[in-house]
Amino acid sequence: MTATIHKIGGNRAPSLEPMFKLVAPGMNKVNAVILDRMQSEIPLIPELAGHLIAGGGKRMRPMLTLACAQLLDYPGDRHHKLAAAVEFIHTATLLHDDVVDGSDMRRGKTAANLIFGNPAAVLVGDFLFSRSFELMVEDGSLKVLKILSNASAVIAEGEVNQLTAQRQISTTEEKYLEIIGSKTAALFAAACRIAAVVAESGDAQEMSLDAYGRNLGIAFQLVDDAIDYVSDGATMGKDSGDDFRDGKVTLPVILAHIRGNADEQKFWRDAMLGNRISDADLKHARTLLQAHNAIDDTLDRARHYGQRAIDAIAHFPNGEAKSALTEAVEFAIARAY
Amino acid sequence: MTATIHKIGGNRAPSLEPMFKLVAPGMNKVNAVILDRMQSEIPLIPELAGHLIAGGGKRMRPMLTLACAQLLDYPGDRHHKLAAAVEFIHTATLLHDDVVDGSDMRRGKTAANLIFGNPAAVLVGDFLFSRSFELMVEDGSLKVLKILSNASAVIAEGEVNQLTAQRQISTTEEKYLEIIGSKTAALFAAACRIAAVVAESGDAQEMSLDAYGRNLGIAFQLVDDAIDYVSDGATMGKDSGDDFRDGKVTLPVILAHIRGNADEQKFWRDAMLGNRISDADLKHARTLLQAHNAIDDTLDRARHYGQRAIDAIAHFPNGEAKSALTEAVEFAIARAY
Repeated sequence: MTATIHKIGGNRAPSLEPMFKLVAPGMNKVNAVILDRMQSEIPLIPELAGHLIAGGGKRMRPMLTLACAQLLDYPGDRHHKLAAAVEFIHTATLLHDDVVDGSDMRRGKTAANLIFGNPAAVLVGDFLFSRSFELMVEDGSLKVLKILSNASAVIAEGEVNQLTAQRQISTTEEKYLEIIGSKTAALFAAACRIAAVVAESGDAQEMSLDAYGRNLGIAFQLVDDAIDYVSDGATMGKDSGDDFRDGKVTLPVILAHIRGNADEQKFWRDAMLGNRISDADLKHARTLLQAHNAIDDTLDRARHYGQRAIDAIAHFPNGEAKSALTEAVEFAIARAY
Repeated sequence: MTATIHKIGGNRAPSLEPMFKLVAPGMNKVNAVILDRMQSEIPLIPELAGHLIAGGGKRMRPMLTLACAQLLDYPGDRHHKLAAAVEFIHTATLLHDDVVDGSDMRRGKTAANLIFGNPAAVLVGDFLFSRSFELMVEDGSLKVLKILSNASAVIAEGEVNQLTAQRQISTTEEKYLEIIGSKTAALFAAACRIAAVVAESGDAQEMSLDAYGRNLGIAFQLVDDAIDYVSDGATMGKDSGDDFRDGKVTLPVILAHIRGNADEQKFWRDAMLGNRISDADLKHARTLLQAHNAIDDTLDRARHYGQRAIDAIAHFPNGEAKSALTEAVEFAIARAY
């Protein structure tokens, strides 16, 4: 790719290392809760859940809860259980997503639904989702329960919205943003916001962290959608070109389509309808994306939301937590390069 | 069928009419909550949910919440929202069940997953499940949230357990009871118990209603599993013989198998493995069930749990609510005749 990199800050390549370092002690506790609470007398449940949970993933969302709690100097430990609850919601969503999409890879491994079957993936997702609410109930904050039950409903709405938009080349950028705001950014926002709830930091701080998480989530998803057209399977942990073959109308496609001539628009329409799924078609798609600057401009949009995320926490005192949260945004963007 | 009917009480055929009459005003309010809260800006959500929710079903579980609240002379209205939450959990479970089972009929109509597709059925189930928690959070009782989040986790475990047992002719009666205790009876129990929570009736009454609901749920499921071998599609609202063709090892099969000779045991093993799915096979299965009294004895077991349900509320004062709850048990059993 030839995009100019407008890096947000720093000289070395941005990474999640400062975040890992910041939250490592807390994440040990979160991981202990996760491992403990995914157990069941029905062996298939920990087996399937473990495939996905133990099998990697950055645990971005629980890390955000922990980092935000540190930003607020929260001295307690309630957030460990709640961070695990957030990860369970996310895992349940992934399991159901893979059934919905018929995915064959997830986090660089064979997707759980292919190994254990769709029925088990649906039901273990339901189990983890219920478990996440049990964890929240144990914590006992109705406010956290409200935030996360609302986020869950919004995620499901976003997923249905995406399903409805699938293969519809007429999907607008506005609608696309609405979809990723629901299906991805809502849980990022909630993961950050609940840190301010347990720290009892007040509405203003809650909304700052909500805005940080929401904008970071949108940036993350935009970059993911760009990467799907530029990476190989090894980088992404899923097959490159999946979105193209599944007829997912993401922002790169929306931009290339709206900027294209009649022939190109026909190509995109055909492609989204599933009639252009060969490697040659994907190659042609990449050529068109390049010609119309669609990837670069998608990443510019991502940078815009990334900058908003950083500004949403600008008023917090400088320190390790703020640096780690800032660099997490830069990392989210830099993944594309 | 030639079973002797040990009717529990009364002279006329037991029905749900007294229950319908008892809870009619409250159910109008519950139905209003259901219709209001299944709405979404994403049209597919109310469309799909409405297919199942508006499409009938007895609303047994919310009716139980309301009838139990009347048994306790609860004067408030918190139970309307909570009864709707219970029905949403149940509906979410049905949607996911139909995906898991690949059902083609539900409540006498084409199953939602066949009309709208598995992806939409999974995601709308998730939406309704999240919505149910939003309703509970609005009510604000952590105790209700605990009871229903636990019931949801237990249901999911029961479903996974059933999936694991599917096609396993070695499934024991004990394991079968464990499965239906989780997948069916847990929500019946919770639906009844939460009435005592909102009425603040104390632990003893809570546990009485829990026991009523749990035993009724087991009786209901036992009768359903018997009916699957004796009814036609019109009676059951689903295809007769579904369990047989799906390799679901229900109590009639467990009894006929364990009492059968070597040839018969081989037949059942083959059938549960999916190698005996013709109409002639189903007819032969029915002959074997009859020869070993397997249906009658399944219904005897159901009567046992039905009687326990009735005794669990024996100490409540006589009146309309107690009569309706008692007759609901008799109705559950009588459906088989």
